[in-house]
Amino acid sequence: MSERLLLHEYGPSGNCYKVRLTAAHLGIPLERREYDIQKGETRTPEFLANVNSNGRIPVLQVGDRFIPESNAACFFLADGSDLVPADRFERADMLRWMFFEQYSHEPNIATIRFWLRFVGLDALSGHQREQIGLKRKAGNDALALMDEHLAKHDWFVGDSISLADICLFAYTHVADEADFDLELYPHIIAWMERIMLLPRHVPLDA
Amino acid sequence: MSERLLLHEYGPSGNCYKVRLTAAHLGIPLERREYDIQKGETRTPEFLANVNSNGRIPVLQVGDRFIPESNAACFFLADGSDLVPADRFERADMLRWMFFEQYSHEPNIATIRFWLRFVGLDALSGHQREQIGLKRKAGNDALALMDEHLAKHDWFVGDSISLADICLFAYTHVADEADFDLELYPHIIAWMERIMLLPRHVPLDA
Repeated sequence: MSERLLLHEYGPSGNCYKVRLTAAHLGIPLERREYDIQKGETRTPEFLANVNSNGRIPVLQVGDRFIPESNAACFFLADGSDLVPADRFERADMLRWMFFEQYSHEPNIATIRFWLRFVGLDALSGHQREQIGLKRKAGNDALALMDEHLAKHDWFVGDSISLADICLFAYTHVADEADFDLELYPHIIAWMERIMLLPRHVPLDA
Repeated sequence: MSERLLLHEYGPSGNCYKVRLTAAHLGIPLERREYDIQKGETRTPEFLANVNSNGRIPVLQVGDRFIPESNAACFFLADGSDLVPADRFERADMLRWMFFEQYSHEPNIATIRFWLRFVGLDALSGHQREQIGLKRKAGNDALALMDEHLAKHDWFVGDSISLADICLFAYTHVADEADFDLELYPHIIAWMERIMLLPRHVPLDA
């Protein structure tokens, strides 16, 4: 990659970790710039004007262009590599799990984790507190679907790790921080162990 | 495409329409099988065992294999066509808008549309009714971001229609059914007119 790659991020975010984990598997060095989302550092006029007008991270900067949305940033880095299957069906199947992650997994597991670990139960609004029950059920539904798939397959798509595994690993492996009981999902635990044993794996706090 | 292509769907769903609209642009014929989600026809033991174990549609059946998640099904159909940019950055940028659609747009605009038009305000639970305000704000935020982009660009990515436009069009063009005021977003209206004038365009109820 000849252009400068700069990740605008907040370290503890699983969405930001996905991009770092993808880059680690590919051996691609990333510059990193940290923003404290708790202090509103991604809502400043400068950030909104120059990085992402909807104030979200991660954003992967490629030269002077920007890619918001974590899963799209992972795809940019991995496009053409072994992390994206060469087979047409498998490539779409990988994206299937990545859309599942953003629609059925992240809004539940990541949001509860953020509320419980970073905001704190006492600081939640009444409306947020009311949502926890439904989000917990939806999060468990997502984990159950993953566990069912992993009962029959070592990886989400094909015979080796792909972006589907990386993107789903990010928030699954910290689901205990959102008080999800991963012991209920033994196939997920075995799959996480496979991922963590890969030679290029890096932890979230690296 | 040599394998049988069968779309498991519910006609009025914008997510199902995306797949039909993609197929229409590509001139690919699709078989269609209709399920009434209001009557629980995607929650039967047969559907859960044979089509999609999380009970959602659309699912694109390719021979004897299945692709859930509307945007992944669109990608399968369009992979290698003009609807997916050949340039690496643009391809990731297209996916960026497709993930944005599933994360920031569909859960707000499509959900309010379903509640108001298909369930009915009187039949909503108290919890659902309480969510409308936040979902309306988030839906308007998504529309504003799209309008801002379309003020400077005719299409979401590159110089012609891509899957990003198709996937965002599906629920945007029926946002009035969720009581969103599209007159507030003149660049979105101009973009929708460009899409509807394309020779291969098909309407949602075709």
